[in-house]
Amino acid sequence: MKRSLGPRGFSYANATWVVGTYGSDGRPNVATVALGGICCLRPLCAYVSLREATYTHSNIVQRQAYTVSVPSTRYVKETDYFGLVSGRDTDKFAATGLTPVKGGLVDAPYVAEFPVVLECALLHTIEIGWHTQFIGEIKDVKADEAVLDENGAVDVTKAQPFICYAGTSSYHAVGEFLAGHRTLGKEIG
Amino acid sequence: MKRSLGPRGFSYANATWVVGTYGSDGRPNVATVALGGICCLRPLCAYVSLREATYTHSNIVQRQAYTVSVPSTRYVKETDYFGLVSGRDTDKFAATGLTPVKGGLVDAPYVAEFPVVLECALLHTIEIGWHTQFIGEIKDVKADEAVLDENGAVDVTKAQPFICYAGTSSYHAVGEFLAGHRTLGKEIG
Repeated sequence: MKRSLGPRGFSYANATWVVGTYGSDGRPNVATVALGGICCLRPLCAYVSLREATYTHSNIVQRQAYTVSVPSTRYVKETDYFGLVSGRDTDKFAATGLTPVKGGLVDAPYVAEFPVVLECALLHTIEIGWHTQFIGEIKDVKADEAVLDENGAVDVTKAQPFICYAGTSSYHAVGEFLAGHRTLGKEIG
Repeated sequence: MKRSLGPRGFSYANATWVVGTYGSDGRPNVATVALGGICCLRPLCAYVSLREATYTHSNIVQRQAYTVSVPSTRYVKETDYFGLVSGRDTDKFAATGLTPVKGGLVDAPYVAEFPVVLECALLHTIEIGWHTQFIGEIKDVKADEAVLDENGAVDVTKAQPFICYAGTSSYHAVGEFLAGHRTLGKEIG
């Protein structure tokens, strides 16, 4: 018998993402989002959900673009900080010593030190409620050579992304390998 | 210097979710999705992205509802299987021996043995491309008493959800605790 927790006691786990945008004055900014993920494979699309009051929200509306820099576990502190303060009154790159790089294909900056970057061009804007969901087409993925496997894919044990877990408001490493997709299930049918 | 991988070499990590729906004949069905997550906090909303050709896609359109059953690591095999075959010609509950339970608040079934369940009523349908994104309002979260912490929140170490990692097409456990949200970042500013 399950206990009913209501719609507020939710539980989710997803990769922790840092969204890069330019302000109207051209300053690069980054913000950590708890609500982001992949929502279509063709075209390959990533969404980030943001409250309208945020600096990043207005930046995306103005430039129609954003990047997602995927931090590795060594940058938990900087990533947590990027979600604590607003870029309206803070230069988060200066405060952390990290380096903004202009995207190659979209009008938005990314974090040079983070190993994996998605460059996104805004495709859809969905007003859901408290959050606006921005769906962007991923124009390019950029990754450090050091985190690629022999097939040129991003190796999770090298990129070391980390999880944002809502149930207990905590960051967690991606843990042990359990199985490949479409492997164990074949034992059933 | 980062290597450009194009839009196909993407990388993401999110919780592995199993979507429950009723078919037009009333049979309960489940399907594992790689594309799902939380996209708004008020109202609390969860999305699942599905190709139009899938059985679950037509079931959601017909009943305007779905559940998300969040499997624990002991059910990796069943979860992988749920993504391998179609409910059109297979009774996946019978094949795995798992138990369908009718949702309390929505017209969709969930998996009794999985510790955490989200009951979702369809709110928005976004045609992005290959995938349709269904956004549902979470009407209730149900969880086994055994996975709750002393505050009534879902404890990740007890619920043991697992991650779907696209870079290497693999399932991974949620790993070690790194930090609480809004903690380490305060050391910077």
